[in-house]
Amino acid sequence: VFDVVKRLLVGRPLRSARLGETLLPKRVALAVFCSDPISSVAYATEQIVLVLAAGGLVALRAAPWIGVVVALLLVTVVASYRQTCFAYPSGGGAYVVSRENLGEGAALAAAAALLVDYVMTVAVSVTSGVVAVTSAFPVLSPHAVAIAIGLIVVLALANLRGTKESGRAFAVPTYAFVGLTVLMFVWAGVKAVTVGLPPASTAGLPVPATSGVAGLAMLLLLVRAFASGCTALTGVEAISNGVPSFEKPKARNAAITLTMMGLIAVVLFGGITVLAVALDARALPDGDPSVISQIAVSVFGGGSPVFYLFQAATAAILVLAANTAFNGFPGLASILARDRYLPRQLHNRGDRLVFSNGIVLLAAAAVALIIGFDANLDRLIQLYIIGVFTSFTLSQFGMVRHWQRSLRGSDTGRGGGRSVSDGLGGAERHAIRRSQAINTIGAIFTAVVLVVVFATKVTHGAWLAVVAMVVLFVAMRATNRYYRRVTAEVTPDPDDPAVTLPSRVHAVVLVSRLHKPALRALALARATRPAVLSAVTLNIDDEETRQLRADWEQRAVPVPLTVVEAPYRDLNGPLITYVKQLRAANPQTVFMVFIPEYVVTKWWQQLLHNQSALRFKARLLFTPGVVVVDVPYHLGVGDQGWLGARRGAVMATSAVDPDPEIGATEIRSVR
Amino acid sequence: VFDVVKRLLVGRPLRSARLGETLLPKRVALAVFCSDPISSVAYATEQIVLVLAAGGLVALRAAPWIGVVVALLLVTVVASYRQTCFAYPSGGGAYVVSRENLGEGAALAAAAALLVDYVMTVAVSVTSGVVAVTSAFPVLSPHAVAIAIGLIVVLALANLRGTKESGRAFAVPTYAFVGLTVLMFVWAGVKAVTVGLPPASTAGLPVPATSGVAGLAMLLLLVRAFASGCTALTGVEAISNGVPSFEKPKARNAAITLTMMGLIAVVLFGGITVLAVALDARALPDGDPSVISQIAVSVFGGGSPVFYLFQAATAAILVLAANTAFNGFPGLASILARDRYLPRQLHNRGDRLVFSNGIVLLAAAAVALIIGFDANLDRLIQLYIIGVFTSFTLSQFGMVRHWQRSLRGSDTGRGGGRSVSDGLGGAERHAIRRSQAINTIGAIFTAVVLVVVFATKVTHGAWLAVVAMVVLFVAMRATNRYYRRVTAEVTPDPDDPAVTLPSRVHAVVLVSRLHKPALRALALARATRPAVLSAVTLNIDDEETRQLRADWEQRAVPVPLTVVEAPYRDLNGPLITYVKQLRAANPQTVFMVFIPEYVVTKWWQQLLHNQSALRFKARLLFTPGVVVVDVPYHLGVGDQGWLGARRGAVMATSAVDPDPEIGATEIRSVR
Repeated sequence: VFDVVKRLLVGRPLRSARLGETLLPKRVALAVFCSDPISSVAYATEQIVLVLAAGGLVALRAAPWIGVVVALLLVTVVASYRQTCFAYPSGGGAYVVSRENLGEGAALAAAAALLVDYVMTVAVSVTSGVVAVTSAFPVLSPHAVAIAIGLIVVLALANLRGTKESGRAFAVPTYAFVGLTVLMFVWAGVKAVTVGLPPASTAGLPVPATSGVAGLAMLLLLVRAFASGCTALTGVEAISNGVPSFEKPKARNAAITLTMMGLIAVVLFGGITVLAVALDARALPDGDPSVISQIAVSVFGGGSPVFYLFQAATAAILVLAANTAFNGFPGLASILARDRYLPRQLHNRGDRLVFSNGIVLLAAAAVALIIGFDANLDRLIQLYIIGVFTSFTLSQFGMVRHWQRSLRGSDTGRGGGRSVSDGLGGAERHAIRRSQAINTIGAIFTAVVLVVVFATKVTHGAWLAVVAMVVLFVAMRATNRYYRRVTAEVTPDPDDPAVTLPSRVHAVVLVSRLHKPALRALALARATRPAVLSAVTLNIDDEETRQLRADWEQRAVPVPLTVVEAPYRDLNGPLITYVKQLRAANPQTVFMVFIPEYVVTKWWQQLLHNQSALRFKARLLFTPGVVVVDVPYHLGVGDQGWLGARRGAVMATSAVDPDPEIGATEIRSVR
Repeated sequence: VFDVVKRLLVGRPLRSARLGETLLPKRVALAVFCSDPISSVAYATEQIVLVLAAGGLVALRAAPWIGVVVALLLVTVVASYRQTCFAYPSGGGAYVVSRENLGEGAALAAAAALLVDYVMTVAVSVTSGVVAVTSAFPVLSPHAVAIAIGLIVVLALANLRGTKESGRAFAVPTYAFVGLTVLMFVWAGVKAVTVGLPPASTAGLPVPATSGVAGLAMLLLLVRAFASGCTALTGVEAISNGVPSFEKPKARNAAITLTMMGLIAVVLFGGITVLAVALDARALPDGDPSVISQIAVSVFGGGSPVFYLFQAATAAILVLAANTAFNGFPGLASILARDRYLPRQLHNRGDRLVFSNGIVLLAAAAVALIIGFDANLDRLIQLYIIGVFTSFTLSQFGMVRHWQRSLRGSDTGRGGGRSVSDGLGGAERHAIRRSQAINTIGAIFTAVVLVVVFATKVTHGAWLAVVAMVVLFVAMRATNRYYRRVTAEVTPDPDDPAVTLPSRVHAVVLVSRLHKPALRALALARATRPAVLSAVTLNIDDEETRQLRADWEQRAVPVPLTVVEAPYRDLNGPLITYVKQLRAANPQTVFMVFIPEYVVTKWWQQLLHNQSALRFKARLLFTPGVVVVDVPYHLGVGDQGWLGARRGAVMATSAVDPDPEIGATEIRSVR
């Protein structure tokens, strides 16, 4: 049943060989990786205007200038990341770039920042989509958390199906939003020169009479507005992380997509900011109506079909922004798992060749965050941004270092590509210097922004995100240390030709009654020719134990039987104690404990048998030096493989040649 | 942690040898076994009056006469069960008596009826106690279900501690209720002859103007009132079930306790009925105030402390009535489990020498019933009674048969006691005839009542109880058939001297990398000297598989390695298929699959390892002919028991003498 539901939801499993077919063409990649940065334009302007309103009309007049700075920053970051795409075609997220150029600490900091930020992205963008829905249909407000969780589940399932499939499905709303926004700009232009544009519905609202805000206070306000506007940049790094997912030529296609994304984001952000200023749209504290919807009302008219279409596209792209995180998080987690910083399960590709465990983990974390914050957008949005700019800054500084090393001829970034120690040509040197300059500007710019957003946001709740990053950082280091310790422990010394052998094997057979399962276990134990063979039973009921002894003697079982008392009728305790005592007395012996076990085929039959073997096995597993041998007896299946030999018959098994030198190393493949 | 909580709640485990100390003295036994029948008097009168009210004042006048018939019935049943106590001192519930004298069908019918009835008893009595509480504190009404569940949990925990302990704790309210009720009678007598008793608060209430009810309709009404009054008899059989729990002389003490119980019940029921009639108390449909509390108001005065004490004692004994079921159900279930009609886990005595599984099962069933019926007393009470009278009737008919056989000299009831075939004396014959007469009267009386309650209650919801009994009956038969089939299958033929042997052993070692755990598993597999030894690995990642092959050749592991392709990256499927294919090709071979497994000591370390071995083991367990050998590698524990032998060294193990004839059957005991 579980299998059928799984197939219906995520589709049939894909062969590993078909990994190549899941590569993304540019038009799909744009929808997959850029829904987050593109969606940001829907609220970045609003965030700026909202902060500025506290400074009165004077401050509001600065809005276009702040918009210009944000746009400049966006262009710088896009230009910087183009360099990364070419320099690290195997997926150069902030983590890889930092690891290669700045060391483990910086790399883990970048990774922690990004992972936390991806979770925030899902929570914030889904919640903002839900807010768009609930402000249209207030009756749904009490169910905001449930709707948000439902959307996350849908996104997770779509991504479990595969990036390409989900990308195709999600491309429609992305392109619809872009198209409709551009249409709005054109419409606004036509209307402005013909009938004239009506001002925004909030244009007449009074602003606080704080004309006295000036000097340092005004500067702080402008800085805070800028920091808020920087939300427009979230998700820009996704493409550089995802270069391997692109069709060939990967780096080139990724760079082109990145440029297109930058272009779209700048145009939409610029246009919306210009219109907001022109229409004098004010941001309301509860965000309803939002600035972008006020603009749409002015341009399209409040009741027109195209207005509703635009609103729907806005809500859809806000939710889809989460999809960027659903692509970024599992990929980054998989790289971290490969490098042994996260549990290795995150490195496995699932049925559909996506990193299923990462997708499920991200969805679970986002759901927890939404429940914890009760789907409150205002509080969630504060957690945001710091992670993005931490990774931006580290990544850019890493790139500066990368180019520096290229110039010195010790580039390691291209993964053992061409050796550059034989000298660089003048043109190449020039190109590298130009790239380095771009990244230097990006690094300084993003570092300044990081300081600004940290200073302005940390008291508003962002400390929680910082704490999460630190915890994750420490956990990843500990995980790595653990894996390295395990590897060191289990890796045999390649120069030591010694073969590990069990020095002495003592087989212990557990019996309760002398029925066929027990006889099988005894026979198998004998067949393994241990140095010592004994049987053990537990005395819970004197009468039953007496019966067992009588049967034992009657059948003349040639194995000594030990009776362990169980005065408290506890099945596990005395047996575990017995095995541990045996082991303490013979520390150089490996104990093989043979457990005869009924195996039934129907669930209700399970209810009719004591499941003590199961619990006993589980506890024995944690006893060092003990090997558990499960001898199942399948009820109703018969005696296949087990012969009724005549008494006195010698075991039919012939031993493997005991000399480990002899015997060819035959290796076969089975398909 | 779990252990500490368990110790706190139920106490330290008791040794099996201390079973004798848990026997009950009469005064505790009365509280343990009789809280149900004694508590019934608190509502039996009310049930009669409630039904009669529909027939108007004429019908109400019949109340005392119906009371007399119920009291007579009670005396008859008590007298009958006294016979059972002596005839079946090892616990002669309706099940045992029916099994010995009437056959399996009747016995299972009686058992099913009783088991269902015990569950109903818990649900009904706890719910009625909760109703008493919520009518005193209406603010608690919405939490009725939660309070009821809480009370059941408390009762279950007290019983898990032990019958004696819970009996002592619960004796106080039982004796308090009896004492206070007797006090009320005395007080009422004194008041009646001095100041006079005020009528009940409901005395003036108009009854339906149905003076026309007569003839057949009136008869039906009286019969229904009688059937309702029969609730006074529930729980009477508990003592005859629990004879083994009494101190010696068991049968005598049980009979004395039973007589005392009968006496108390008749006196209380009679007194309350007389007072209800004298004060003209009417039953209200919602039972608030109840008839017994109306009487208490009249006698003690509504606001007096003794009135509140009486109310508290009434509520307490209503809840404690469930305790009778908590003693009856586990004991009966244990006997049924011993006879293989119920899962054998129900036969095990827990830590505290009580049948813990039965207690937990009863509590769970009662909780389910209360949740299912939303703690609605009116609906729950209808399910009641049919079970009790089914078991009464079968038990009495069984006793009649028992005495008949005693007279014929073929008594089997006393469990191989004295042989009576050498003829009975005249006095003995006379005694047996008298006992038989008592049981015959009881049998006929209860059979008539059974027909009456069935006819009057089955349409009011009791059909559900009947369905439950039928289902349980069928399930018990099926369980017995299953156990018998299994026993037949696994019991070796005692006349067949053949020894079961694995005809041929093929050891398969599962490897992923050639690390120490894998080397250990390989070495152990070799040490067991199988006929065939091979290794198998799964190709998920070509690079890793190539590395394994290289290591394999470099170390010259003298075992052929098979590579199984896993194109869908599924770990279990291909391996299971491979093992099944091997097995299909060699049906006469036993496959020992050696699984190297990391064992970690901290829970978070579990997260860092794939748990695929666990799932693989679970699936292999269901593959016939396959034995799973768990070779654990305890991280951080070291190499105890495993030696680094020089290459070429022969296994250090020496085989057990392969001739099964030789070797003494040594049996030791370990304490």
